[in-house]
Amino acid sequence: MRNQDRTPRAVIRRLPHYLRALEDLRRKGISKISSGQLSEQIGYTASQIRQDLNHFGGFGQQGYGYNVDNLYQEIQRILGLDHSYRVVIVGCGRLGNAIAAFTAIYEEGFDIAGVFDSDPGKIGGDIEGHPVQDVAKLADFLAKEHVDVGIITVPADAAQSVADTLREGGIRGIWNFAPIDLQNLGDLPVENAHLSDGLRSLIYYVND
Amino acid sequence: MRNQDRTPRAVIRRLPHYLRALEDLRRKGISKISSGQLSEQIGYTASQIRQDLNHFGGFGQQGYGYNVDNLYQEIQRILGLDHSYRVVIVGCGRLGNAIAAFTAIYEEGFDIAGVFDSDPGKIGGDIEGHPVQDVAKLADFLAKEHVDVGIITVPADAAQSVADTLREGGIRGIWNFAPIDLQNLGDLPVENAHLSDGLRSLIYYVND
Repeated sequence: MRNQDRTPRAVIRRLPHYLRALEDLRRKGISKISSGQLSEQIGYTASQIRQDLNHFGGFGQQGYGYNVDNLYQEIQRILGLDHSYRVVIVGCGRLGNAIAAFTAIYEEGFDIAGVFDSDPGKIGGDIEGHPVQDVAKLADFLAKEHVDVGIITVPADAAQSVADTLREGGIRGIWNFAPIDLQNLGDLPVENAHLSDGLRSLIYYVND
Repeated sequence: MRNQDRTPRAVIRRLPHYLRALEDLRRKGISKISSGQLSEQIGYTASQIRQDLNHFGGFGQQGYGYNVDNLYQEIQRILGLDHSYRVVIVGCGRLGNAIAAFTAIYEEGFDIAGVFDSDPGKIGGDIEGHPVQDVAKLADFLAKEHVDVGIITVPADAAQSVADTLREGGIRGIWNFAPIDLQNLGDLPVENAHLSDGLRSLIYYVND
């Protein structure tokens, strides 16, 4: 069912939203839902929802709607969340700590392989049970260990160099929290979590 | 220059990206930049950049490009970031702590008015110098204090009730980190920071 070349990026980016909505329904013990009800909950039109899911074969039944558990599992599978992934977290400030806790506690299937920092005051400490290692040893670590995703939570001026090391170390994706646009990473998938951006565009509408 | 009705939401959502790029240029001591160079840095086409900025009057000079400081200040003004804002943070878990630190340290112009939690073990504690207050007193607090933005960092099942209290308390915008779609908030601006979504769509491309 994976059909990457023909699936628009915008559709892929909406799948986690569907997943969240389905998680919410599961928490509430709801086992089936129509595209109309799903539309009300998440704010896309019913037609948009049907179109999005048709990229992967549909999953709905005429006159019945969607089976919540089934759709949840299908979307997990499409995204690849039916496997587990090993991550490193680079940057053990407060944001790094929160992301480590978030990854460890909230995101099933993501295992922290190692955490790194450049601050001698932090190296040797502990995050979520993982000893903080010297970022100077990150390249060696990546050469030895299988790691899928690098999470960057260092300050802006250190982020590019960390990204370069991650790319050279054969990482398969970067989740970047540093407030810069990483450069020269070729085809390496990068997902930016620029927290400020959200707060700042919110302020525009606050002043409406 | 604010021209809200006619400015597409997509343009507003790109403005913080411009701001980040300009902050990066300022850090590097670069004082002017062409739309072509800016395009290379942030990955939008030069024509897109010119179109976006033309919604607010342009700011560039033919054959010169953009004055970095000037453009930075203009975009700050357009977004309303030339004023300061008071925020409350509801949810003092690790994510709440990180967001409090982030807001206090990284985001100039955002002052924490109060922090709240429902956990008796956390109430009376301290985040960024602010005593953790009982969320049961949030409505009273909002009635007495001027607060612009509510930041929700509680678990999914508590988020809607916090959002309702914030709305009833006259808050002007919500920055929501809980992994649900908040409902029944009318025209109240809500910016969702659904961290999982980014990680999950990244995984799709990691499996490419």
